[in-house]
Amino acid sequence: MKSNPLTWKIDPQQILSPQGFLASAAAAGIKKAEDRLDVGLIFSSLPSIGAARFTTNVVQAAPITVCRKNLEDSGGEIRALIVNSGNANACTGEGGLQAARQMAEMAGSILGISPQQVFVSSTGVIGVPLPVDRIEKQAATLKAKLRPDGLDDVAKAIMTTDTVKKVCSAESNIGSAPVRISGMTKGAGMIHPRMATTLGFVLTDAMITRALLEDALGFACEKSYNRISVDGDTSTNDTLAIIANGASGTPLIDQKGEHYTHFLDGLTSVCQNLAQQIVRDGEGAGKFVEIVVQGAGTEAEATQIARSIANSPLVKTAIAGEDANWGRILCAAGYSGVKFDPNRVNIYIDELQVCRNGTGLAFDERAAKQILRQREIRIFLNINMGEATSTMWTCDLTKEYIHINADYRT
Amino acid sequence: MKSNPLTWKIDPQQILSPQGFLASAAAAGIKKAEDRLDVGLIFSSLPSIGAARFTTNVVQAAPITVCRKNLEDSGGEIRALIVNSGNANACTGEGGLQAARQMAEMAGSILGISPQQVFVSSTGVIGVPLPVDRIEKQAATLKAKLRPDGLDDVAKAIMTTDTVKKVCSAESNIGSAPVRISGMTKGAGMIHPRMATTLGFVLTDAMITRALLEDALGFACEKSYNRISVDGDTSTNDTLAIIANGASGTPLIDQKGEHYTHFLDGLTSVCQNLAQQIVRDGEGAGKFVEIVVQGAGTEAEATQIARSIANSPLVKTAIAGEDANWGRILCAAGYSGVKFDPNRVNIYIDELQVCRNGTGLAFDERAAKQILRQREIRIFLNINMGEATSTMWTCDLTKEYIHINADYRT
Repeated sequence: MKSNPLTWKIDPQQILSPQGFLASAAAAGIKKAEDRLDVGLIFSSLPSIGAARFTTNVVQAAPITVCRKNLEDSGGEIRALIVNSGNANACTGEGGLQAARQMAEMAGSILGISPQQVFVSSTGVIGVPLPVDRIEKQAATLKAKLRPDGLDDVAKAIMTTDTVKKVCSAESNIGSAPVRISGMTKGAGMIHPRMATTLGFVLTDAMITRALLEDALGFACEKSYNRISVDGDTSTNDTLAIIANGASGTPLIDQKGEHYTHFLDGLTSVCQNLAQQIVRDGEGAGKFVEIVVQGAGTEAEATQIARSIANSPLVKTAIAGEDANWGRILCAAGYSGVKFDPNRVNIYIDELQVCRNGTGLAFDERAAKQILRQREIRIFLNINMGEATSTMWTCDLTKEYIHINADYRT
Repeated sequence: MKSNPLTWKIDPQQILSPQGFLASAAAAGIKKAEDRLDVGLIFSSLPSIGAARFTTNVVQAAPITVCRKNLEDSGGEIRALIVNSGNANACTGEGGLQAARQMAEMAGSILGISPQQVFVSSTGVIGVPLPVDRIEKQAATLKAKLRPDGLDDVAKAIMTTDTVKKVCSAESNIGSAPVRISGMTKGAGMIHPRMATTLGFVLTDAMITRALLEDALGFACEKSYNRISVDGDTSTNDTLAIIANGASGTPLIDQKGEHYTHFLDGLTSVCQNLAQQIVRDGEGAGKFVEIVVQGAGTEAEATQIARSIANSPLVKTAIAGEDANWGRILCAAGYSGVKFDPNRVNIYIDELQVCRNGTGLAFDERAAKQILRQREIRIFLNINMGEATSTMWTCDLTKEYIHINADYRT
């Protein structure tokens, strides 16, 4: 079946391999449970290019330093990605940098490419030396297991406190060629959107120039990973990486025309879906909350207000308690740093208006409870100052979050 | 006993009334438990002046609007303060403003002063109309109960989720006259330092000009209330107010000389003690955490880093779990927005160094556990870029915080 060339068929259940990619995973014993997959390898068998967005934290993990250098040294000709979970290789000094380089060298030697053509990524505990020898011992296994449908195993291998595997695929046509954009992600805590958050890896067989791939990734990242928050903590390892190999035979996307817009649409959809899966699996989260701020002067201001609400522990605990405490929503908007007139603010919880012109309404508490009992909740806040809108996605804050994070390391 | 004129005797257990002040409290039934004190009145029987710092939240409660206006209309000649708990009178529209004005009028009429000479303050749930008639019914009681040792009852009347009453007194001499600075505060949640946080009321019988009183309050507020955080939520009602009546007969403090410095020292000590009491009573808090950032380029940058650490849910849950997860401390410093070189950072938990030059040390985990088991914990982070230092006070984040806040309103 030929799909409509201007729509994308989104499948958030499985990761369909774009053409020309191989992948494998192994259990290296970096995670506590020794039989769990914790190393993954992705390879484009054709020449390909890569782009990435990294954490804005000034404390950056060793693999991020290595990725930046490899992107530069290879002129963007990235062919592979090696990743481990169970150890973030962050705050590990010169030894950590050496370990990250060794991972790239190992991948390069397995795949017959230069180590500079490899993205390296790590996630897990901070400040503990990475036992890279255990990863190196898996070289033969990773090489032997490489296959077109291996991406699903990699998606499993990057999980840490995640309770579910997070993947998404998009299919459409560009020109007359069928094309795929497929991604995986991980993350449930230390989630706060500043540039890229957590790990996300996207693969595509679309044919696109490096400059436009970077543009597209930046746009998609801003509309997806940068619009989620679990706990307001921005990690040291955040990476959103994409590899494009053109294997689909689509026309080369080398200008911002119809094909580019279509590609951007697909990429944004995949990234949004992946980012939302992170929030749905937020540590201890019981509810998925969409915060829509309307009527702002600029999109940046709308985002700033939405972010402030999404990060408020008091808003998030009220939602956990299914309490329509809208005063906390307005309060969090009020300290966002954006100037607005509180007397023009309207707030809705789903369809139910709870505040008009900054003043509480005598709303039906039972109806509110009914809405808040749902697993997915939408909050609308209109400041009636302009036309701009922005949406953030977050989750509630529960006792389970504390439980998960109180003894994560030991 | 004449105390050393250049030191202050600090008593955090009781609120000793400065000369010339009277106070009373009553149970108006604004709080759910009808017999609990929830309205308080403070009166300077001599002419006096007032100064205040208010929340920077753009959503400001009605009593704050009224206070600002009264300060202006009276030329700073504030003589009294009326406060209720159980209802914040915030997001209550024109009716809320009217209710706040009625509180000032009632106090003025009891005390025989102009309503413009009254500070009005409210704390409690947001967005619910204030039943001001219940407060007005207490006029006779409040008047009849006015007495010099009534401040303790007012300190009880302003409690909401506070588990303990929070007061502090300082005694010293200015010139040859004995002088007192005595304060009370409330607050346990929605605590995040931006200008003034929560309610704090300070009284003094020192004689000082309005301009210097304002200066002194701003300085003390910056070093105390603006250096604490429980949950990163800045309230709509935050107020730190001071009334000075000169009843002690101290020389007039009208320039920034020795007497002013001494007064500032006492006021800062009282405010710091009160602010720290809030953190110690932080909602669900089990531990008091002092975060000292050293070696920054400026005090503002040191504060910014300390604030980021103090607000990190991951740092705070690790402390609750008594887990020396210093990587989260460095990570939170890293996303503070301050540029520094992670490779120069040293971190100590009390005496125990856990990170040197940005890299983890093989420290004694049992010794770390021993330290973290204490009720008071100090964290030192030195970025080795300059000479500036700042301290923030916060608490751990526990399941009890969630429990308290999940169903606060209903």
